[in-house]
Amino acid sequence: MVKKPKLLPSKSNFPEWFDSVMFLAEIADFTYPLKGCGVWLPFGWELRNNIFNIMRRLLKETGHGEVYFPLLIPESIFMKEAHFIKGFENEVYWVTHGGLKELDVKLALRPTSETPMYHMFSKWIRSHADLPLKVWQLVNMFRYETKATRPMFRLREVTSFKEAHTVHATEEEALKQVEQAIEIYKRFFDELCIPYIISKRPPYDRFPGAKESIAFETILPDGRTLQIGTVHYLGQTFSKAFDIKFLDKDGIEKYAYQTCYGVSERVVGSIIALHGDDHGLVLPPNIAPIQVVIVPITFKEVPGVEEYSREVYEKLKNHFRVELDLRDKRPGEKYYHWEVRGVPVRVEVGPEEMRSKTTTLVRRDTFERIKTDLDNIVERIEELFNDIRSNIKNRTTSWFEGMLKKAETFLSLSGDAKDAVYHLIDENGEFKGGVVEVPICGDIECEMKISKFVDILGEPWEGTGEVKGTCICGKPARKIVRVSKQY
Amino acid sequence: MVKKPKLLPSKSNFPEWFDSVMFLAEIADFTYPLKGCGVWLPFGWELRNNIFNIMRRLLKETGHGEVYFPLLIPESIFMKEAHFIKGFENEVYWVTHGGLKELDVKLALRPTSETPMYHMFSKWIRSHADLPLKVWQLVNMFRYETKATRPMFRLREVTSFKEAHTVHATEEEALKQVEQAIEIYKRFFDELCIPYIISKRPPYDRFPGAKESIAFETILPDGRTLQIGTVHYLGQTFSKAFDIKFLDKDGIEKYAYQTCYGVSERVVGSIIALHGDDHGLVLPPNIAPIQVVIVPITFKEVPGVEEYSREVYEKLKNHFRVELDLRDKRPGEKYYHWEVRGVPVRVEVGPEEMRSKTTTLVRRDTFERIKTDLDNIVERIEELFNDIRSNIKNRTTSWFEGMLKKAETFLSLSGDAKDAVYHLIDENGEFKGGVVEVPICGDIECEMKISKFVDILGEPWEGTGEVKGTCICGKPARKIVRVSKQY
Repeated sequence: MVKKPKLLPSKSNFPEWFDSVMFLAEIADFTYPLKGCGVWLPFGWELRNNIFNIMRRLLKETGHGEVYFPLLIPESIFMKEAHFIKGFENEVYWVTHGGLKELDVKLALRPTSETPMYHMFSKWIRSHADLPLKVWQLVNMFRYETKATRPMFRLREVTSFKEAHTVHATEEEALKQVEQAIEIYKRFFDELCIPYIISKRPPYDRFPGAKESIAFETILPDGRTLQIGTVHYLGQTFSKAFDIKFLDKDGIEKYAYQTCYGVSERVVGSIIALHGDDHGLVLPPNIAPIQVVIVPITFKEVPGVEEYSREVYEKLKNHFRVELDLRDKRPGEKYYHWEVRGVPVRVEVGPEEMRSKTTTLVRRDTFERIKTDLDNIVERIEELFNDIRSNIKNRTTSWFEGMLKKAETFLSLSGDAKDAVYHLIDENGEFKGGVVEVPICGDIECEMKISKFVDILGEPWEGTGEVKGTCICGKPARKIVRVSKQY
Repeated sequence: MVKKPKLLPSKSNFPEWFDSVMFLAEIADFTYPLKGCGVWLPFGWELRNNIFNIMRRLLKETGHGEVYFPLLIPESIFMKEAHFIKGFENEVYWVTHGGLKELDVKLALRPTSETPMYHMFSKWIRSHADLPLKVWQLVNMFRYETKATRPMFRLREVTSFKEAHTVHATEEEALKQVEQAIEIYKRFFDELCIPYIISKRPPYDRFPGAKESIAFETILPDGRTLQIGTVHYLGQTFSKAFDIKFLDKDGIEKYAYQTCYGVSERVVGSIIALHGDDHGLVLPPNIAPIQVVIVPITFKEVPGVEEYSREVYEKLKNHFRVELDLRDKRPGEKYYHWEVRGVPVRVEVGPEEMRSKTTTLVRRDTFERIKTDLDNIVERIEELFNDIRSNIKNRTTSWFEGMLKKAETFLSLSGDAKDAVYHLIDENGEFKGGVVEVPICGDIECEMKISKFVDILGEPWEGTGEVKGTCICGKPARKIVRVSKQY
């Protein structure tokens, strides 16, 4: 229903491929006449819901309650925490008029929900028995991006912002929650077959007001890193600004400790970008809106194939999200239609299959063809789903791991960008992408010099063991930082 | 976790009862410091999701694709259709600033999505093969209400606006879609046990730009009617304003015909208001976030009851949304906790039940106690769910039907409101509520006189047969209209 480009360009031309596949697979339409805002189409929205339902399950299992907080934030509440104001003052949309009248109080569109939530938390929390408090929501949010926007990756309306917020009695419990949040995100990205690295952001790049910010990054096909999830330890910054106090067991009133963590539709974009190929989407079966499509190959001379395809459909319909494609189109057209949408398994049934009570299964990830008896087709497809999943995961992960490099030093930083980022740049000066771990002395001046040429993601979250190598200043290195070019 | 009123007032004091039950059952917190905006709490949000998942299923079964359109609408697009502008100019919030800068183009927060959707439809639709187009979304929307706001019923941020929009090649098909929309809403309200009447709004009360507006109304316990759903036939009003044209089979380019229809969280409010009692919520089992709660009644002298309650839980957990309440509280406290939340069935297990391998089931709707063998507890609860559902439906419907009255005339309209609305007012001049069907001549002057005293809902959608009686002007009546006091 969307006006489409005729053909899908090769994925080696990533930006054009990505925009084309969004149209052709009917994920979203970004021709809406407002920069950074797009329309989700039915197939894309179902994919998005399948993805976030995994998150919903993970958060439910770990005791998070799902809530909904207002989009509109009165200026007085938005302006309560100094770091936060500074961090968002250039990015917030303001509502100033209701109808034809100017409002008494300006209203911010949430760019994230710390301020409305923590205002309410301060009313809700009275004693240690009210803690821990763990809530989350999946909402739209707004940032007045001045950089170039990109569908799924840099938006002005983020339609699918999953933000979780927790409150704890002690620092220790809050830090444990940070660990749990990281664990939840690992499981989430693992279920989506998205490879990632986890980095501890440098102090100058933390979330406004946070004591510690930990970020998940993946790498897109063009070699740039994309932040796909963040976990923040907030300490008492906000509990002091919003007066979130509780009466502890010892009878003393104390300020609470807080965490928050978020992901967005960037995960949907990552799945499209990482797993797709020159034929379109390639989807892990667990999130594919349509898991199996049946295409009958009919001939006028051979009656009964359509009936047989219905028989196959009946066998599958209670086990998978399955579509029987009886449209009046040539099989080749149908193959193309479903391939670009990433349907994991195509079931072809023609005269030969009908006669032998078999089907031909075709894997989307490898295009391998597998002859299968109708009797055990359900089990065979279930096995195939496992194989497809493993294959998608392995090929994406092995590509990703090839993009991670280690360096012994940054070499000289004589002002020549090529020198500085030589691990990210090939002999011809072309950006080749990826992430490099480099040893540095730890002085902020050296980090600042480096960050003129590349983006510093921070230290590996898991630690680095013994640090070897030399910093650009010539001193022995004392820590490792990851650098890349970021979206 | 919310600061609560101590006790639930009697439902005869409806407004206070409603606000209290919202707190006590942890549905929502409307102490957010912005009029008409509230916070959904986990229990309430789950209830809301269970309700709208029924709608999602019904819309999927009838071929509607779920989409998401941007919240922000550029002024030029918002201002394309004259009736629409006039209808919404006093109600729309405007974003005028991004960060510290004034925006070049003012952005409206959607009060409904005709304008952004129809702008895109005009790009998507080229030929008859693109029709019908049927999409829907569940989104937040905004109205700058100047009237008094009420939780769930009159909001500035409507968090749960379900809007469907369809485009058709012919008027006939569009009118058939109107019938289907009405059918979908009937099934939806029936599944929620919400009784309703359907009325055809008078021309002066149609949706801005509509050719016909049909509304579903229920009646709240205070006797006022609440509009809970609307279906609009838009004709070609918007297709002409937004240039939604298609090349028909006959080779001629034509403007399309459109419909739209919506419901909101008013349905959640209606379920709370209509089915609840002096003990709190009463929920139909199909939408209850928790369907069954197990409360062990333990004594120090009798070991094993807790273990037995776990055995009961194991038996139920794969069949129902069930909670085993092992908190360190007295059983009476637990009963109160789950009654106010409307859990349809409580399972009590004490020493006696343990010895005899039975349980005592307690119905929330009637408080009837039923002894049941553990062996057939699943079947017994399933039966009970049916009984509870029928009982809720019957009692709410029979009360509702008692509120529908017919009159032979409006009597005199000598300027005395008591005369005019005597069917809605008792001998002491107190509003007693409900809906009255009255005969009128059909002249607009008479309707205008009546509408000074009561709200005119419109003519019964199903038709009225032969019309008898006399209009206020003394002339014989030619049609029937329904009147009430509306929220």
